Amino acid sequence: MPHTAIVLFAHGARDPQWAQPFEQLADALRQRRPEAKVEIAYLELMQPSLANCIAALATAGISDILVVPAFMARGGHLKRDLPTLLDSIRQQHPQLHIQESPALGESPVVQAAMANWICDYAGSSHTS
Amino acid sequence: MPHTAIVLFAHGARDPQWAQPFEQLADALRQRRPEAKVEIAYLELMQPSLANCIAALATAGISDILVVPAFMARGGHLKRDLPTLLDSIRQQHPQLHIQESPALGESPVVQAAMANWICDYAGSSHTS
Repeated sequence: MPHTAIVLFAHGARDPQWAQPFEQLADALRQRRPEAKVEIAYLELMQPSLANCIAALATAGISDILVVPAFMARGGHLKRDLPTLLDSIRQQHPQLHIQESPALGESPVVQAAMANWICDYAGSSHTS
Repeated sequence: MPHTAIVLFAHGARDPQWAQPFEQLADALRQRRPEAKVEIAYLELMQPSLANCIAALATAGISDILVVPAFMARGGHLKRDLPTLLDSIRQQHPQLHIQESPALGESPVVQAAMANWICDYAGSSHTS
């Protein structure tokens, strides 16, 4: 049974298809790290919430959780909403070790991939 | 004078720092494609709007524009808001050739980079 989990924390949207890229990413992570549980939690409009997701992980015996904000950039949702949620979750589950990564869109590796992809796309389109 | 432009179309936020990753990405694109103008436009809360950005590009003599949705996923903003904006912009500037790319977060290259980065981050943190 895994003791660690990666939780992709995404904004959520009304359109169910919106979740697809996060589900793909979660599947890729599950293949790459079979020793970890990988889940997706949402700030709003979709389920599960971060609190419910982490409560379920705690019940399943997970002790270490990395929360990865699947956001393009760091604004009020990550500067205020996420810390407030994590404070409350840590109070409810003091036995858990919960870490938070930078936002995905801020990572230099992801930034470089975005720049590469845009250049390739622009190069293969009529805008080149 | 460049005839082509790449416009990163981002959601916008109240926090000015939120725009930073998009500005970094725009700078990287400017270095990689000096022959193109690279701009950022916002759906809401930040300026310029997509309509104002493209109007300025048209005034500057740009003829070909690639709009790149700098979004993690495709929901109502990209399925409804962006097409509505682009319809209106195309009517106002029938001489422009405007293309739209998939959302950044949906690109397989960006997805792979996100998976790599998360695995590396998780591996170097206490959750490994």
